[in-house]
Amino acid sequence: MRRITLGEVCTLLKENNNFHILTHNYPDGDTLGSGFALCCALRKLKKKANVIVDGNYPSKFTYLNENYKDQNFVPQYIVSVDVASRALLTKNVQQEYEKINLSIDHHATNTMFAENVYVDGQCAACCEIIYQIILDLGLEIDEDMAASIYTGVSTDTGCFCYSNTTENTHIIAAKVMPYCDWKNINQINFAIKSRAKLKMERMVYDTMEFYAGGKCAIIYTTLAMQKALGAGDDEMEGLASIPREIEGVLMGITMRQKDDGTFKISVRTNGDIDAAEFAAKFGGGGHKGAAGCSIKGDLSTVKYKLIKAAEEFL
Amino acid sequence: MRRITLGEVCTLLKENNNFHILTHNYPDGDTLGSGFALCCALRKLKKKANVIVDGNYPSKFTYLNENYKDQNFVPQYIVSVDVASRALLTKNVQQEYEKINLSIDHHATNTMFAENVYVDGQCAACCEIIYQIILDLGLEIDEDMAASIYTGVSTDTGCFCYSNTTENTHIIAAKVMPYCDWKNINQINFAIKSRAKLKMERMVYDTMEFYAGGKCAIIYTTLAMQKALGAGDDEMEGLASIPREIEGVLMGITMRQKDDGTFKISVRTNGDIDAAEFAAKFGGGGHKGAAGCSIKGDLSTVKYKLIKAAEEFL
Repeated sequence: MRRITLGEVCTLLKENNNFHILTHNYPDGDTLGSGFALCCALRKLKKKANVIVDGNYPSKFTYLNENYKDQNFVPQYIVSVDVASRALLTKNVQQEYEKINLSIDHHATNTMFAENVYVDGQCAACCEIIYQIILDLGLEIDEDMAASIYTGVSTDTGCFCYSNTTENTHIIAAKVMPYCDWKNINQINFAIKSRAKLKMERMVYDTMEFYAGGKCAIIYTTLAMQKALGAGDDEMEGLASIPREIEGVLMGITMRQKDDGTFKISVRTNGDIDAAEFAAKFGGGGHKGAAGCSIKGDLSTVKYKLIKAAEEFL
Repeated sequence: MRRITLGEVCTLLKENNNFHILTHNYPDGDTLGSGFALCCALRKLKKKANVIVDGNYPSKFTYLNENYKDQNFVPQYIVSVDVASRALLTKNVQQEYEKINLSIDHHATNTMFAENVYVDGQCAACCEIIYQIILDLGLEIDEDMAASIYTGVSTDTGCFCYSNTTENTHIIAAKVMPYCDWKNINQINFAIKSRAKLKMERMVYDTMEFYAGGKCAIIYTTLAMQKALGAGDDEMEGLASIPREIEGVLMGITMRQKDDGTFKISVRTNGDIDAAEFAAKFGGGGHKGAAGCSIKGDLSTVKYKLIKAAEEFL
């Protein structure tokens, strides 16, 4: 459980072999991009490395693992990417990997669960760290790495729009763009909406309510709504950004009913409102502008708890 | 009517004085950003310069002209920015400025209407050219210039998402970000939606129809719809990007009824479909991915014309 430098990260990667790289559950573009880019880099160093994707692989990210093939070996060194705490791994993965040797992450809230931890909370995406590691390892960016890195930096910043974007995010984008089909990546992640998703968005807009004098907007999806529209995980993505987009809203809350009787809560904030602090009231966490938690209960009970907490918080 | 180099542009700017800088009608972030940034630059060179904003000034861009004050002088040298043809100026401005001395533009379709023309069709935004001019004039970027340049490059690329984005767009963003409140600019241009705009979007979604086997999506707004929601120009902005966002759609058409009995048509395309070529069938023009035209007539007649043309075109 020690913090190490980026130079030490590179040394550990060079000195070890037979890597398993863990992504977080509900994998997004940044954890997958970080995983695949790091895996490419290690294989270029003639290491054996596999990416262990935790949770369901979102179909829209198929372009990231098209050229990827699992290698056959016994893992010796376990690295997690973009994973802020063990709780973000599924139970299965938690059991299989009791010890994690290295955590590479951009969440300032990282719980220091690994033997060695490198965290840079200034980075908009974990992929920014991976990009620097690739350079520091003396490797050249290839198409697969570029597509992975671009995916991570663009998806974690809402295509360079969110306030976590930095000059470095733009510079990395400019550096990797010549090597990958970023136009296609943007189409997939930011432009194209399935008709099912469109219907889901419209249904979700119908649930929107405002509280705290318009400073809080709350929306929800239920299993019944999902079933009615035949909406899968892909259609559910991105809904969390909807309530925060409304003028005057400082905190947007999205409730998504899960199979296990809980609601997955996404909190998105504007200005000085700390989403992680709010989510922590319900045992969750995350970043200042984007955080999450889980709450057990039926729709109206969970919603009432959230509204009450939001009114007090704002 | 001669094409000149960027070096010659700088020479003309240095050799002349008493500038009027013309923006295009229905001013957007790029024409305004180009105008104000160039105006700042000329004033730093101790020149007299005013921006002549053609058409209604969109209220959301108030942050661009907060510090701007008109100067009192007789104009001697007329520069247009981001204006592809005289037709994009209002009748009033066309009459007042018979001769335009210099056109600085990024539309490859520029009609060469000015005495001297500098066009770089590779630039995502006219502001990219203005940024280079500022550097070539030996000036340093200040806060007003940075806010103007960032506004132009971000709004013309849908916040670095559209396929016209280049490495240079990202690099310029990285260069100007330290000097301006880009987070606020993104909030204004990309994040915040008024409740009236939200209602307008939902009403517009209700008008969406698909043609050409799902490859064409068409939406419309009427004066009656606008009136019912009390929606002004600000609420109408950005609607044109909605139909193209749907999976499988290659051409999104947005019809907006105007006071003068015409519909303003916006065409947005994906892939290899040329929006400018389609708009040209109705006397319009623009870029490959985004173009427009005007068609006189009632809703059903205009819509039928567009659908028929789209079915043939796709």
